[in-house]
Parts: sequence; C-alpha cells; structure tokens
Amino acid sequence: MPRVRRILETALYVEDLDRAVRFYESVMGLNTMSRGVRLAALDAGEGTVLLLFLRGATTSGASFEGGWIPPHDGAGPAHFALAIDADELDVWRRHLVAEGIDIESEVSWERGGRSMYFRDPDGYSVELATPGVWPVF
Amino acid sequence: MPRVRRILETALYVEDLDRAVRFYESVMGLNTMSRGVRLAALDAGEGTVLLLFLRGATTSGASFEGGWIPPHDGAGPAHFALAIDADELDVWRRHLVAEGIDIESEVSWERGGRSMYFRDPDGYSVELATPGVWPVF
Repeated sequence: MPRVRRILETALYVEDLDRAVRFYESVMGLNTMSRGVRLAALDAGEGTVLLLFLRGATTSGASFEGGWIPPHDGAGPAHFALAIDADELDVWRRHLVAEGIDIESEVSWERGGRSMYFRDPDGYSVELATPGVWPVF
Repeated sequence: MPRVRRILETALYVEDLDRAVRFYESVMGLNTMSRGVRLAALDAGEGTVLLLFLRGATTSGASFEGGWIPPHDGAGPAHFALAIDADELDVWRRHLVAEGIDIESEVSWERGGRSMYFRDPDGYSVELATPGVWPVF
C-alpha cells in the first residue's frame, strides 16, 4: 500500500482573483509563488499550498507542454482551516479586527485547542485553529 | 503580523458519507480519526486533516458545548492535491488501476515533479504530486 504524505494543495474558487490575492497576502500574510489570469498559488506554510482559482475558468481543463490538467470547479461557501500557534490566537484576533474582518465565532475543543472563524471575500468559512483540535494537531 | 503555520483542514462535500469514507480509507489508505452522521475526519498525514462533510448537512451551523460552528457547504467538482514520495508514483499508479480507478491524466512539471489525476466517488479532481511541483514542495 503506497503512502499519502500530507495534503499539499487546497483550492478555493473565487469571483475576483485580485481581491482574493489581496486578502490572502495582506490580511493572512501568505506569499504568492505563482500568478496567472486564472490561478494564483500561495505558500501556506510547511509545504502546503493555497490555490485561488477564478471561478468558472477551469471547467475545460488546461493543456501545456507538461501535459493536460483535467477540468475542475467549485462553489462555496466551503470550509477550510489554517493551523496557527496557540500563543498567536489573541494577536490574530486583534489583527483581523484591525483589518475590518468580523469574527463570526470562536470555539473551544475538548483537547484544549481553540478555533476562530471568519469569512474571506468570497464567503469561504476560514478557521484559524491552535494545537489541540485533532489527535494529529 | 501573526503567522499561518500551514493548511490544517481541507473539506470535501460528499453525497454519500459511507462511500467517501470507504474510498479514502481503502483506496487512499487514510485513517478515520472521528466519524459522525454528517462528518468524517481523516488523518491525511504530517498534521493535515481531510474533512468529509455530507453535502447540505452543514448549512445551518452546529452548536455544541464548546461553541458554535458557522454554516458552510460546497459543491464540486473541486480540486485538491496530496503529496507523495517520488519513488511511490509507480506504486500508486498500479494500486489505483488495481482498485478500478481510471487515471485521468499525468503531468510533468518544470521543476521535475510529476502529478497524477483521478476522480473520487463524488467527482472531486484528486491529484497525487511528487516533490518538484512547487518551490515549497
């Protein structure tokens, strides 16, 4: 049985690619590694990648010299979570509020972790989670 | 500026939770950490978590003793990628074919990485990617 190492790429499908890149760069602090008209790829840390696709722009697949990328597309408001350090939860809360982001909810988990939920510009439910949410984090 | 450590959770929204769990356990080799009627959480390796939500079951949010989880939902056929080791790509290909999975495409990237694409039972575009796809992997 071969092995999956980890989740590498998580994709969001956005209405306005500039707006989404601005949010994930300036509010969330991620760095863009690659940027085209239909896709931005951001370094999300520890070998994970956040892909921002222009919604509806990838429904036909894409050919390039390296091969063919099959079609895909998605609609929200889906959920994903980003890991943060426990001692940065308060800093994140202040930072998001200063950026004009509404904190939609905060949750305490049995294992001691905490989560903070808010929306990105496309309505995705973004969670920031501290260690103690899952057996593996 | 506070720091994002990595992507922690990636969510898929599925028509049949049993079918999806079976696929990600028996074909992809992931272990289920937690299972309810609307959600299964699978260990996807290296501190990442694959969440399988029953589509349409999380549109009203969820309250529990620890707080309130805001509503979310999603529709595909979205894309996500799993990291694998380079020397396991051939083993993965044989394994998927033996499981009756059609390989939809294979791609070679400029940095030397390779990707293999196929569909999960809900039509999500799953990619297995070897190192050399991104500057960070």
